[in-house]
Amino acid sequence: MSRPAHRRPEYQKINKDLFVLTYGALVAQLCKDYEKDEDVNKYLDKMGYGIGTRLIEDFLARSCVRRCHSYSEIIDIIAQVAFKMYLGITPSVTCNNSSRNEFSLILDKNPLAEFVEELPAGRSSLCYCNLLCGVIRGALEMVHLAADVTFLQDRLKGDSVTEIGITFLKKLDEKKYRRKK
Amino acid sequence: MSRPAHRRPEYQKINKDLFVLTYGALVAQLCKDYEKDEDVNKYLDKMGYGIGTRLIEDFLARSCVRRCHSYSEIIDIIAQVAFKMYLGITPSVTCNNSSRNEFSLILDKNPLAEFVEELPAGRSSLCYCNLLCGVIRGALEMVHLAADVTFLQDRLKGDSVTEIGITFLKKLDEKKYRRKK
Repeated sequence: MSRPAHRRPEYQKINKDLFVLTYGALVAQLCKDYEKDEDVNKYLDKMGYGIGTRLIEDFLARSCVRRCHSYSEIIDIIAQVAFKMYLGITPSVTCNNSSRNEFSLILDKNPLAEFVEELPAGRSSLCYCNLLCGVIRGALEMVHLAADVTFLQDRLKGDSVTEIGITFLKKLDEKKYRRKK
Repeated sequence: MSRPAHRRPEYQKINKDLFVLTYGALVAQLCKDYEKDEDVNKYLDKMGYGIGTRLIEDFLARSCVRRCHSYSEIIDIIAQVAFKMYLGITPSVTCNNSSRNEFSLILDKNPLAEFVEELPAGRSSLCYCNLLCGVIRGALEMVHLAADVTFLQDRLKGDSVTEIGITFLKKLDEKKYRRKK
């Protein structure tokens, strides 16, 4: 991950509440459209993937992140820069294996579900925020980093925290995850 | 419009791009679900209405706006405080009649359509950002201000600006638009 030194577009910051409520309307619409929770989850992931592939270029330009040399560094950028920029929070990070390619982002509070008290009736397998997994997966793929991204815990399902698991699928090869010039 | 003096919750600001792209995914989904543009427009307005009715309480608490004594003041709050807070822009305002109950918000740039170059093929009557009209209508209704809110011009339809028309439907009665205690 790198960016040309001359580019740093300004951006206007906004309050997230309109976004969070609009996201709720999107999930509600998909629940109308698809009977099965797993179909809603898949669709949210797919939508997020498309969004991530579009968001990454702008993110790199705006965030001024430098080239990363390990998956740990990449995860830190996602937690400390990307989450902060787009959701206003900084999840904590854990590494889950000795090969250092499996990580978790731990969200004490999930702003995207801020207005949701519980999952809708009959929707106990819904991954309400699954769009986020797709966004991360799509953005990573655009910098040549294949990854599995899934919810491992969810406060909406009664867990004490919300946890997003990210597993990088390939041996790290610095050349492969450089941005295309 | 008023707020108790002791409340001013802090809020975290975010970059709007994830919101804008998520909104695009919502509109695309509704275009899949509804064949007719007018049905998509109606549905966006309806969704927005629901969002506006939820957003207003928080807006009043966070924005610290004081009681307004005219429709002009209310429109200024919408343009200068609400649009700035949730979309990062400040539309200009015009009053369109001598009774001073018809106004326009003029957006030189519409951030919600920032990633949209043109309306989808066969969707020439789509009011892409119609959610906003619903949000404004819903929020106003919660402070007892009935209003018609519609797009009068749209850059996505080839107009030089985007213009949202707001017509207040009742004679202003200060008591009626006080927030419920």
